[in-house]
Amino acid sequence: MKILITTVPFGQVDAKPLKDLANNNIEYTINPLGRKLQPGELAELIDDFDIVIAGTEKIDKKVFDRAKKLKFISRVGIGLDGIDLNYAREKGVKISYTPDAPAPAVAELTIGLMISLARSVNRSNLNIKNGKWERYFGQRLSEMNIGIIGMGRIGSGVMRHLKCFNPKNILVNDIDSSTVRDLGTGVSVCSKDEIYCNSDLISLHIPLTKDTHNMISLDQINKMKKSVYLINTARGGIINEESLLDALKGGKIAGAAIDTYEDEPYFGGLTKFDNCINTAHMGSMTVDCRSAMEIEATQEAIRFIKGVALMSEVPEDEYQAQSYNL
Amino acid sequence: MKILITTVPFGQVDAKPLKDLANNNIEYTINPLGRKLQPGELAELIDDFDIVIAGTEKIDKKVFDRAKKLKFISRVGIGLDGIDLNYAREKGVKISYTPDAPAPAVAELTIGLMISLARSVNRSNLNIKNGKWERYFGQRLSEMNIGIIGMGRIGSGVMRHLKCFNPKNILVNDIDSSTVRDLGTGVSVCSKDEIYCNSDLISLHIPLTKDTHNMISLDQINKMKKSVYLINTARGGIINEESLLDALKGGKIAGAAIDTYEDEPYFGGLTKFDNCINTAHMGSMTVDCRSAMEIEATQEAIRFIKGVALMSEVPEDEYQAQSYNL
Repeated sequence: MKILITTVPFGQVDAKPLKDLANNNIEYTINPLGRKLQPGELAELIDDFDIVIAGTEKIDKKVFDRAKKLKFISRVGIGLDGIDLNYAREKGVKISYTPDAPAPAVAELTIGLMISLARSVNRSNLNIKNGKWERYFGQRLSEMNIGIIGMGRIGSGVMRHLKCFNPKNILVNDIDSSTVRDLGTGVSVCSKDEIYCNSDLISLHIPLTKDTHNMISLDQINKMKKSVYLINTARGGIINEESLLDALKGGKIAGAAIDTYEDEPYFGGLTKFDNCINTAHMGSMTVDCRSAMEIEATQEAIRFIKGVALMSEVPEDEYQAQSYNL
Repeated sequence: MKILITTVPFGQVDAKPLKDLANNNIEYTINPLGRKLQPGELAELIDDFDIVIAGTEKIDKKVFDRAKKLKFISRVGIGLDGIDLNYAREKGVKISYTPDAPAPAVAELTIGLMISLARSVNRSNLNIKNGKWERYFGQRLSEMNIGIIGMGRIGSGVMRHLKCFNPKNILVNDIDSSTVRDLGTGVSVCSKDEIYCNSDLISLHIPLTKDTHNMISLDQINKMKKSVYLINTARGGIINEESLLDALKGGKIAGAAIDTYEDEPYFGGLTKFDNCINTAHMGSMTVDCRSAMEIEATQEAIRFIKGVALMSEVPEDEYQAQSYNL
């Protein structure tokens, strides 16, 4: 069986996944374009391969129809919004993912973005680099009500870190009882609307599904404080990008930190605002987490080839919630 | 008695200090230039005033010689490197400061800068805003040895926050036993040289004195890992700016985050590097800490006027270590 590795870079921070493939005499090809593939590009490449070790690229019906030999997708990472899960099932393609590995890296980046926003770090950096010295007042996290929407692997990590900064209150929602057993003190469970109305900073840690697509649009933003900061290290499309642009233009929010976009690479209007921090989908990009993701996804592909039981197949509820047909 | 308030903005985040002065019928003037004063400018202004509520501006012999009525300086903040302490004593001018108030704000900003550096947040933001999408690998703090030089009010706050991110090891030095009683676990006390040689990130939390001026120059940088990150939220002049420039130009370090400069406002060569985060001396600039600093400094000035015992006079060791004649 032949493997196509679409996610890049791959094997760069740790060569173990490539060695594991070589040691098992498995033939593989790494994405020759060196960047996220468009569906048409993937469709061109895929017909010769049995397995894809995949990134966040779109794997749609057209791709599946061209993938005559495809039997298994091993997703490096957690979000499944790029894959037409139910069509994959129809075609008999199994799918695994690595839902745990990226969480610590995303949670830690999120805390960094919180402080950067609350203290105008990136704005000050842009200013000084453009010859302008202005000292901004900021807030400590202990002065803020912080809303976390999505309390799964990542959201609960953010909550744990946040507690060390002693926020006024942590407002949470959407608790995944399989990963979060105990919220502890200083945390209030409330509705999304209460989070929108009462938070000084809101961070998203939910998957992109048909239910969460455009979840935060102008209606929701209009409920928020004008001093609110928004963070999205989850998936593009959860915050409607046009609404966010309007909010930044109209001063309806104090700022945003956006790591994920509907279309990536992103160079749209959000890049025009010095109170919007843009990062290049780097939530999981730490050496330790990235290598864990690549190693786990590769091991799973090897298990598939050897006919050994898979260890992290995508569970049924992901198929039910699937976000593909947005 | 008349007060000159040189530090700006003042009374902006909380009007209490100005109200306190008004309620005590104390006449005051706020820095009419609205920015940090040069010694010549301060000398021009000062002759009519008995008290200065001061910022970080230089108060040198020339200023003291022109300040015929000056009896008391109440410093908003902690660093005393701008004031010729011993000449003040010669002239019979007492000095108080607010050493506790800024610490939590500086410590929290420092953690934000650590994550921003380790994850290339500012570099990615600059890239995207310039039309370049590149995903950088970063490190979690848990993968790093983190050196903290200076373990007083601020350094110990940084240490406490850091522990929540579980670094490999926290290397510390220069422990102020009056503020730090217990280092706890995960912390190694070692020499500055050991910190230089073994750290993946080094953060400075010491005052600028004659002993710490240019403490980190090329000799020290040459001992460091090429992958090291340097953070200075303490005072400009502790890291020699020319050496830091050389290090960034020559790729001798991975990056830096600099909040304080020898001369401020700063627009020098460090602003040319996308792996150098520049902020505008904003360590203490949170609403809560800044208002505490202003209120405390004003209360101390009122105590002086009323002849009540002062509560935070600058202690003798600051006079001994004084950094003025650099």
